[in-house]
Amino acid sequence: MTLVRARAAISATDPLAPLTIERRDVGPGDVLIEIAWAGICHSDIHTVRGDWGQVTYPLTVGHEIVGVVAQVGAEVTRHRVGDRVGVGCMVDSCRRCANCLAGHEQYCLEGFTDTYNGVDRDGGVTQGGYSTHIVVDEHFVLRVPEALPFEKAAPLLCAGITTYSPLRHWNAGPGTKVAVVGMGGLGHMAVKLARALGAEVTVLSRTLDKRDDGLRLGAHHYRATSDPATFDELANTFDLILNTVSAPIDLDAHLRLLTLHGTIVSVGAPPEPVRATLFTLFDNRRSFAGSKIGGIAETQEMLDFCAEHGIAPDVEIVRADQIDEAWERVLAADVRYRFVIDISTLAA
Amino acid sequence: MTLVRARAAISATDPLAPLTIERRDVGPGDVLIEIAWAGICHSDIHTVRGDWGQVTYPLTVGHEIVGVVAQVGAEVTRHRVGDRVGVGCMVDSCRRCANCLAGHEQYCLEGFTDTYNGVDRDGGVTQGGYSTHIVVDEHFVLRVPEALPFEKAAPLLCAGITTYSPLRHWNAGPGTKVAVVGMGGLGHMAVKLARALGAEVTVLSRTLDKRDDGLRLGAHHYRATSDPATFDELANTFDLILNTVSAPIDLDAHLRLLTLHGTIVSVGAPPEPVRATLFTLFDNRRSFAGSKIGGIAETQEMLDFCAEHGIAPDVEIVRADQIDEAWERVLAADVRYRFVIDISTLAA
Repeated sequence: MTLVRARAAISATDPLAPLTIERRDVGPGDVLIEIAWAGICHSDIHTVRGDWGQVTYPLTVGHEIVGVVAQVGAEVTRHRVGDRVGVGCMVDSCRRCANCLAGHEQYCLEGFTDTYNGVDRDGGVTQGGYSTHIVVDEHFVLRVPEALPFEKAAPLLCAGITTYSPLRHWNAGPGTKVAVVGMGGLGHMAVKLARALGAEVTVLSRTLDKRDDGLRLGAHHYRATSDPATFDELANTFDLILNTVSAPIDLDAHLRLLTLHGTIVSVGAPPEPVRATLFTLFDNRRSFAGSKIGGIAETQEMLDFCAEHGIAPDVEIVRADQIDEAWERVLAADVRYRFVIDISTLAA
Repeated sequence: MTLVRARAAISATDPLAPLTIERRDVGPGDVLIEIAWAGICHSDIHTVRGDWGQVTYPLTVGHEIVGVVAQVGAEVTRHRVGDRVGVGCMVDSCRRCANCLAGHEQYCLEGFTDTYNGVDRDGGVTQGGYSTHIVVDEHFVLRVPEALPFEKAAPLLCAGITTYSPLRHWNAGPGTKVAVVGMGGLGHMAVKLARALGAEVTVLSRTLDKRDDGLRLGAHHYRATSDPATFDELANTFDLILNTVSAPIDLDAHLRLLTLHGTIVSVGAPPEPVRATLFTLFDNRRSFAGSKIGGIAETQEMLDFCAEHGIAPDVEIVRADQIDEAWERVLAADVRYRFVIDISTLAA
């Protein structure tokens, strides 16, 4: 067991506190990572605030982690000391169920182990990336290609894969029309990835405030959902709509934008049930689906794809003592487009 | 214009009345069909009772029609006098939109012309199959293979294609597990078709009352949804769930029965919105979809498939003066499994 520095939530509402947390000893299959950068995800805030269920405090969050391998266990074959690596939303899974064996650990039938607020293999609570070091089984450690700017690689581990996986699964590419709902951390990655995959990309945002950004990031079109004409003019248009917004949307109105056999996929998670009218689903044989991050092999594929296509998120770097302020700005949607914590600023 | 005998609804609640209705003259592309058998579909009753919107009375319903070609227009090439033919839920569509051109007339972007209570090309109201003759554009007339018992072919035009199309679209076949929700007119066809397509078939019905029938029709398993153990034991099982029930179901409970990348497709249409929880959709990357009858080419494929595999609905023949009684039994779910009207009994 090792003690490492971290920032932790000590309650649902208090500011984050500097704290020393425990990391398990490096086992035969484990990798010890010295963390360099950690992205701030809206999920971090939802979790700490108790929006998604029970929380064990103190809790260190953060599941967009990149760093350098500092030590490896005797049986580790995939990673070496000095490698640039990353860790996303998962640090373990059963690895025996059909979904794990098929490389879809995110859909592990026993439930994967969350990077934070999960139950670790030793029975303790997993602690995330707002800390100087983490110990993770090598299977859940990704390689970060040299071509990716290190600090910008962090958000790919959640915002990147969460949008890449459904884009790939539903075959976004040349000849397809993709709409991205929401221009936040996930949405801005979805635009870049869908464009790089070859799709014709439209952003659907409440207003046109971020229109210039959207077009710069690669969108071909940018439309306001506050304008009813948008829903009239774009009826029966999209093969795929990727909804990155966590707040409830008018699902029927968006479904009507789908063309034949089109699908709207939500990756944001409002706790409220979603409602749709069957007659809207009947037309064009439309589907509504959910999607959750991505598997480990697919996450590696996404990192390699981003390196190859020069894709990285737009980030704003913050110090550890600025995290509370950054969280407030995330809640106010005042970030373009992802905060990344410089972990070297974590005070002892 | 020709006058033909029919049974018609004169209001939402009165018994059907013997009536004489008009059929347009046979145009160059038209086929005049002498109707032999007409299936009774729950939609007939929904429409007449006003459940699905405005109705123009008097209205003759019926969209499961088979008969013999009595006359063809000068430009007709697909059908000849004396041919056994069928007509389903559509008698026209725009034929210019992308969906029509792709052979998916049921998703015509201008809306296809319903076989009854639709707006005909002459501006009148279309009248359905509870009548002795009908005039239909040859494109919307199907060939009924000789191998199909004639009276049993009628329900294939709605109940058959409505279940066949989603089974095909979502690749029901060897190695897939399909559940059919509901053992009514559509459900019993879904069981036969899914079995013939090679899938492992489970019926999910409220009770086990029709279990013997279900297994006889081809289901491998038959489970009661009134038994909570069904939902525990079948969690994460099905690739496809075909929901044929028009009443609202507990969508979340059924979604949890889907395995990785599974889809639940509704073909029944409760007017109430459906509700689902996003976290249920996230697990296994599940989808919820609607599906509406099938295209003309696919309907022909289905008829040929049924002929080849010896598949036909279980029917109960009724006389024209028994339709009101049959409707009551449809509403009471007291039919195994489809009523078919012997049109030769239509009084003058």
